[in-house]
Amino acid sequence: MPLPTRVDVIEVGLRDGLQSEAAFVSTEDKVALLNRLIDAGVRHIEATSFVSPRAVPQMRDAAEVLAGARRVPGLVLSVLAPNAKGAERAMQAGADEIVVFVSASESHNAKNLNRSIDRSLQDIDEIAALTRGQSLRRKGAVATAFGCPFEGDVPEANIDKIVARYVEHGFDGITLGDTTGMATPVLVTQTVTRLQQEFPGLSISLHFHNTRGIGLVNVMTGLQLGITTYESSLGGMGGCPFAPGATGNICTEDLVNLLDEMDIATGIDLASLVGAARSLESIIGRPLPGQVMRAGPRLALHSLESIGAAHG
Amino acid sequence: MPLPTRVDVIEVGLRDGLQSEAAFVSTEDKVALLNRLIDAGVRHIEATSFVSPRAVPQMRDAAEVLAGARRVPGLVLSVLAPNAKGAERAMQAGADEIVVFVSASESHNAKNLNRSIDRSLQDIDEIAALTRGQSLRRKGAVATAFGCPFEGDVPEANIDKIVARYVEHGFDGITLGDTTGMATPVLVTQTVTRLQQEFPGLSISLHFHNTRGIGLVNVMTGLQLGITTYESSLGGMGGCPFAPGATGNICTEDLVNLLDEMDIATGIDLASLVGAARSLESIIGRPLPGQVMRAGPRLALHSLESIGAAHG
Repeated sequence: MPLPTRVDVIEVGLRDGLQSEAAFVSTEDKVALLNRLIDAGVRHIEATSFVSPRAVPQMRDAAEVLAGARRVPGLVLSVLAPNAKGAERAMQAGADEIVVFVSASESHNAKNLNRSIDRSLQDIDEIAALTRGQSLRRKGAVATAFGCPFEGDVPEANIDKIVARYVEHGFDGITLGDTTGMATPVLVTQTVTRLQQEFPGLSISLHFHNTRGIGLVNVMTGLQLGITTYESSLGGMGGCPFAPGATGNICTEDLVNLLDEMDIATGIDLASLVGAARSLESIIGRPLPGQVMRAGPRLALHSLESIGAAHG
Repeated sequence: MPLPTRVDVIEVGLRDGLQSEAAFVSTEDKVALLNRLIDAGVRHIEATSFVSPRAVPQMRDAAEVLAGARRVPGLVLSVLAPNAKGAERAMQAGADEIVVFVSASESHNAKNLNRSIDRSLQDIDEIAALTRGQSLRRKGAVATAFGCPFEGDVPEANIDKIVARYVEHGFDGITLGDTTGMATPVLVTQTVTRLQQEFPGLSISLHFHNTRGIGLVNVMTGLQLGITTYESSLGGMGGCPFAPGATGNICTEDLVNLLDEMDIATGIDLASLVGAARSLESIIGRPLPGQVMRAGPRLALHSLESIGAAHG
């Protein structure tokens, strides 16, 4: 299969990256980042999460963050909504899209949402009923789709059951979430191929973490399977709760650089994106794992005088 | 093309990683690392460099490092030799293989070796004559094969000319060196495919840096082209002289983990390799960029009690 010529990059740093930051990032800083992303040409942004402010204080300003976005044509502001209450708040706040989620692993779902997968699917039914006929786009995520940090491999049947429910409700697409970076090219190929066969025409997004250094390898696998939507985080912000020092989401600039190098259009300006990543670094006050923000794109050349001989 | 079922991993950290370390690492520590790599099942190691001790003081103990290796069947101890004098010293020290190198870029070759490409090829002739008929394996590296930090894209004709000379001298193989991490899947495909066509049967190794986060993506591209030998560095040790904070070589453990996950045999034990990488971290006294050493392999599971809820 030839590689896609265009890819949609969904920026999730303001949600998936920031949610693991202990120190509250001001609403003003969040809005400024959001607008820098929009200025860089990013047109699909998971901007925040309508979760309980007690559970995730970082997301307590969800409505204000959304309200601060500079609306431009084609922009999709997406938000995470764990339940009907969150979906209701998201609609009131003017989100363009909600993302709901269920884990493919019972133990992770219990840990994350404090209920069984079947109980979560009833919540999905409720959210689906609430949002039916609205202009809101609806997307269903499968968390731990490529492995669970407690159980290891997840049952295919769980993934299929969750996806079937999303499809039944007429959702606009699904996301396979590699929540703790357990995806591999083999698993991505197996899972995506199976879903493509079982649910023809289903819009599939891939959400990879770079926990084990192969997030972009998995993107490459996805591209070779014809997948055209990827979620990533500015600067690679985010982490893994199980591995201190491990990285989280794949890095948006590194992803866009790779796509640029393969002549796959994203509509995003890499230099502006790098600028946004640098401003994010200064906001959170520590280096982020993004690499292109340090090395520059490959044709950012150097003068002959800039270093001594390397001798090999 | 189906992926290879077996890959040779050449560990280059003791040479390409250590050479950019300003502080001298003791010969004892180097030998201990070398033997930990051998114990982990690594059977091809670029262990040091026979360069001028004035130019690269870190490599001044080249002969002692080689002498300290625990010789096991199948082990290939490789060394870098920039000139005939280096090759001579390498033979005296009992190296199994020498690697010579010329840059595909005139400006990089001038900076690195202080001479033109044609002049370097005369040096190659001299080394070839000196080593002809010896049991020593000889490998020719093309530095900056995927881009030069001073010039950008490098002329195909330069690569081809250098490779042709190596082939003419009956060398055992070539290495394409991505000296400053400028390789991309497109460039790897173009260059490898061209060389495979022009030099049928040529043994090609790939040496990638992860400077822009896509080192392992380039490995995946190489695997899909049928390439079965890759060079990498323990812990991802090494750097890029042009980009402070940027990473250097691809990380051996991360590479082996990826290959393990694709059922591609390497003969290397990942857990032992991670142990060696941790000991390297403690020797050089700072964190290395390797990710599997932090996160563990994907099936290193966690207890349900180990964290609180993530809410998404």
